[in-house]
Amino acid sequence: MQAVYFIMGVSGSGKTTIGSALAQQLRIPFIDADHEHPTENIEKMRMGIPLTDEDRMPWLQKVHARALAASSDNGAVIACSALKQTYRNLLEEHLMKVYWIFLDVDRALLQERIKGRKNHYMPASLLDSQLATLEKPKQAIRVNAKLGVTETLDIIIRSIYIKEKRIGIVGLGVMGKALARNLGSKGWQLSLYNREVKGSEELVAKQCVNDYPELNTALPFNDIHAFVKSLGSLPCIFMMLPAGGVTDHFLNTLAPLLSPGAIIIDGANAFYADTEKHQEQLLQHNIHVLGCGVSGGEQGALEGPALMVSGDKQAYDTVAPLLVSMAAINNSGNSCCAYIGRGGSGHYVKMVHNAIEYGEMQLLAEIYGLMHNGLQMNAEAIAAIFYEWQKTELHSYLLDITQQILIKQHNHQPILSRISDKASSKGTGAWAAQEAAFLGEPAGMFTTALNARYVSANTGLREWVQQHFTSRDQVVTAQKIAIDIDQIKAVYTLVRIWNHHQGFALITKAAEKYRWDISLASVADVWRAGCIIRSSLMDKLAEGFIYTNMVLDIPYCKEVLVSNYHKLVQLIGAATLAEIPTPIINEAYQSILQYKQKKLNTTLIQAQRDFFGAHGFQWDDDTEGIMQHIDWV
Amino acid sequence: MQAVYFIMGVSGSGKTTIGSALAQQLRIPFIDADHEHPTENIEKMRMGIPLTDEDRMPWLQKVHARALAASSDNGAVIACSALKQTYRNLLEEHLMKVYWIFLDVDRALLQERIKGRKNHYMPASLLDSQLATLEKPKQAIRVNAKLGVTETLDIIIRSIYIKEKRIGIVGLGVMGKALARNLGSKGWQLSLYNREVKGSEELVAKQCVNDYPELNTALPFNDIHAFVKSLGSLPCIFMMLPAGGVTDHFLNTLAPLLSPGAIIIDGANAFYADTEKHQEQLLQHNIHVLGCGVSGGEQGALEGPALMVSGDKQAYDTVAPLLVSMAAINNSGNSCCAYIGRGGSGHYVKMVHNAIEYGEMQLLAEIYGLMHNGLQMNAEAIAAIFYEWQKTELHSYLLDITQQILIKQHNHQPILSRISDKASSKGTGAWAAQEAAFLGEPAGMFTTALNARYVSANTGLREWVQQHFTSRDQVVTAQKIAIDIDQIKAVYTLVRIWNHHQGFALITKAAEKYRWDISLASVADVWRAGCIIRSSLMDKLAEGFIYTNMVLDIPYCKEVLVSNYHKLVQLIGAATLAEIPTPIINEAYQSILQYKQKKLNTTLIQAQRDFFGAHGFQWDDDTEGIMQHIDWV
Repeated sequence: MQAVYFIMGVSGSGKTTIGSALAQQLRIPFIDADHEHPTENIEKMRMGIPLTDEDRMPWLQKVHARALAASSDNGAVIACSALKQTYRNLLEEHLMKVYWIFLDVDRALLQERIKGRKNHYMPASLLDSQLATLEKPKQAIRVNAKLGVTETLDIIIRSIYIKEKRIGIVGLGVMGKALARNLGSKGWQLSLYNREVKGSEELVAKQCVNDYPELNTALPFNDIHAFVKSLGSLPCIFMMLPAGGVTDHFLNTLAPLLSPGAIIIDGANAFYADTEKHQEQLLQHNIHVLGCGVSGGEQGALEGPALMVSGDKQAYDTVAPLLVSMAAINNSGNSCCAYIGRGGSGHYVKMVHNAIEYGEMQLLAEIYGLMHNGLQMNAEAIAAIFYEWQKTELHSYLLDITQQILIKQHNHQPILSRISDKASSKGTGAWAAQEAAFLGEPAGMFTTALNARYVSANTGLREWVQQHFTSRDQVVTAQKIAIDIDQIKAVYTLVRIWNHHQGFALITKAAEKYRWDISLASVADVWRAGCIIRSSLMDKLAEGFIYTNMVLDIPYCKEVLVSNYHKLVQLIGAATLAEIPTPIINEAYQSILQYKQKKLNTTLIQAQRDFFGAHGFQWDDDTEGIMQHIDWV
Repeated sequence: MQAVYFIMGVSGSGKTTIGSALAQQLRIPFIDADHEHPTENIEKMRMGIPLTDEDRMPWLQKVHARALAASSDNGAVIACSALKQTYRNLLEEHLMKVYWIFLDVDRALLQERIKGRKNHYMPASLLDSQLATLEKPKQAIRVNAKLGVTETLDIIIRSIYIKEKRIGIVGLGVMGKALARNLGSKGWQLSLYNREVKGSEELVAKQCVNDYPELNTALPFNDIHAFVKSLGSLPCIFMMLPAGGVTDHFLNTLAPLLSPGAIIIDGANAFYADTEKHQEQLLQHNIHVLGCGVSGGEQGALEGPALMVSGDKQAYDTVAPLLVSMAAINNSGNSCCAYIGRGGSGHYVKMVHNAIEYGEMQLLAEIYGLMHNGLQMNAEAIAAIFYEWQKTELHSYLLDITQQILIKQHNHQPILSRISDKASSKGTGAWAAQEAAFLGEPAGMFTTALNARYVSANTGLREWVQQHFTSRDQVVTAQKIAIDIDQIKAVYTLVRIWNHHQGFALITKAAEKYRWDISLASVADVWRAGCIIRSSLMDKLAEGFIYTNMVLDIPYCKEVLVSNYHKLVQLIGAATLAEIPTPIINEAYQSILQYKQKKLNTTLIQAQRDFFGAHGFQWDDDTEGIMQHIDWV
């Protein structure tokens, strides 16, 4: 049973133009109800005699019969004046899916249009009679008929999306499944597809439908052709596959099956350049790919993630209702779904989100280490501190879950003491480090956080080092170090700001390099709920970015940086001598310290470069950028 | 005047086969002297009557005339027995360029070959007479005629290269010019090409020829066609262009002008993946591209650089005499030119060389800073210390030039105090940081050194930070810190080892990933002279790598690491509290400290990842790598 789209309105409102264009776009037949009038009616109209309801009845029945037939076939767009509600009731009888699109237009424009017409049996004199007869529909998609064809079609299609609420989801892993349940619970009509792999992935979609009540009405598929067919003439597919080869391969399979105008939303943690490659490739089929960074983990995906979307703006507007309905809402009542910019900027911003997340997680691990190894506090005592911090400006999702992790027991022991310390990572952390190096942005926090994970997994070298240092060196210091909780809190507050600074600075640098028009305010706004790095600090940044594009320039951040700096110096001094690893806190310190120097010893590096490579240097007081080269020997 | 190649040897040695194959490869005509015999001679031979010198004279004169004619045209390969020195003297008379290639073969093989022949006028019975007549030549390229055709041709061509000593050099910037002078001084016949850019690069090659006596006999070109033509039938081109777009563009122009079998050596600091792309592209024209990392700066290029070469092994062997004659010789008498491996491995190793160089330079800047800002020593006093260190295991090229820089004056002031601290960088440093992140190798030294340069050039943020910290914070500490020169020396010694460790570890990781068969011993051996990071430490590593593939496992390194570690802890503690920036020393410390921990706090990161993303974790005592996932809430 396919949809029937009635384009209604008085004569001259543009039903034929819009209706046939819409039919063409949806690749379904167009029916002009005017052509269904019996000759008596046409004669009457030609003579300027208004039709009575009685005149109209056989005509309406004929149009209704065609609508019914179309609905059993591929559906249709039907242009039909349908001025009264009773006519419309008759026309939609027994149709399962029907859309009313009302082209609303004022009298003056109508008159003008009708005058310009040739070979049409409706004279302008009937206009007033029509306008008198018209009962404006309440439930219809209403479009101001003044607008151009393209604009009108866009509004119609977007609205149909909202009404149709049909979307395909591909890939039912942890995240795909959670997103499907999220949409299912919001009344979206889902087609679910997962590939079939004997022994490991069998009837996954069917299983989802059985397992979750909110997916009861979803259609499960393991055949890609049937899946695509189920999406009708307006295919929109949310793809939640592993980034890289799997996605490349799937898009190659999918593209030829889709009709032009289809929209694919890639929700994976894809590398932004890959997203741009896919956008280019599929545009050749007239299919739009939107990159969509999804943050929030499993729970976020289920309850409302943060979405960072990029690509063709019109395509985004078309699917915005879907994405907005899926996304979290932040404290200001804004949706945590935003259009970031062109190309792969959405996935880029998601990559930076993850880099900040890496920094936050490493920092929390070090703060925990300072308390646990430095202050000899147990997990419960540390959790109690974090619980208190949650009531302050330090409130964040990551601090919250850390506190929960610390109190979690396993066999009457803190679970943390039982977990292996070999930390894993996926693409985004490494990509951010690579991008920073490439763009010349000194974002050392991200590399440090990444390397801490790499070191943890480098079992061979860890064993070698531990074996070659004497036992004395292997024992974590048993002395309490001379720092207190308030100092640690001050340092935690400061280093988080430095970490966020580096993230937003990287976005700014990338936006310049790749010519993206990114609003930091809207990025921070999206990150205020749903995502892993949501926090009170993010609330402050979102507000601050209305006035400045620099984290440090936001009064709260500036104040923390300057006030807490000396506690940072003292804490690092103590931690160093006590041999408690604090790589990311150190990185922040060394970075700030370098920026603070009026003159850096990189002078020597410039001299060396000129000495051995004739690369040149500048004089200190040179303001014109003139390169010097001297004969050193 | 083109070269004539005589292939000589007794009947059955393979002159025709090898000669015609060689002619084909060189794209010049092949002349079989046997076809030049007058009929009387052929008759005599058929009857088994040995030819007399008198018989041979008109024949030799005829062959000589053809050789002379060929030399004025495109040259030729001439197969001719030429058994006696007097014959050869006659044949090469008035020829400017002549090569004798002698196919040497034992009697048994000869007999066998001659028996298998059909339609040849020389019966086997003449064999002994021929062998009796043969006077083996002394100056010829001698090849054992037992070898296969391909192998024989390779040896011949390689040897011609050595004899011909003709090579083209493209790109006469600082490095290109220095390499040209290096080769010119060693008797190579150079064709020099530089593009012509009105106003900035005009007649550059001609200028070089005029400016430097060692380039007096070089041929200057600004026309690429004339340049290629000057290289004759065996073109070998050393390319010293900026990596990236300029190289891409030039290769596109050059490739169609070259004959198959040509060899291009890319001496730029190219990204290894670009080198592999060029190798693939040009192989379609049957042209080999060798990647060649060149280190040593201008002086090294002039006096003997270190060369790290990769690509087709046969192509390398062909041009090895050229490269070896150009390269430095290390203390062990080995050439600092080595074949690293397939593909782009040469440029990869050069990239890591530069990353180690970045680390060494940053470390020296910090050591200088500790003495200058921490111990309040002036440049001259620091230079005196460095001068002493040069007599120890700390000896290195970079320490040497640093000492020279420190005593260099400008207007009666240490020049260093006058130089701008905004440090620059080119591609290799950033690439190494990117590669480390990509491969999962925690080589934080490289990112730290790179970021120190990025920070120095980030004028905007430096000014902002300095403006917002109170004046107290901007002044470098006026107190001497509680460390001494010996401590600094111990730390310098240790951190250099850690820096080298990370470089070689990155090469090892890359070799695994890209399946390159790289010998660390030969890499270190190449780096013992000519290059920027040559040092006594490198001598130790080159020796150590014979027994282990791990820097830290070399007894000297292990000893320094363990013995000097506590001085590192103390120095960083002091420098931190005195607010003297030591980013790379800190990076080494934090890295070692992390490896030393029996259990890292990355446990928390694994717990967080499982909490929000269901990524799983392992139990601490799990030896089977089973991923756990628990319900955290």
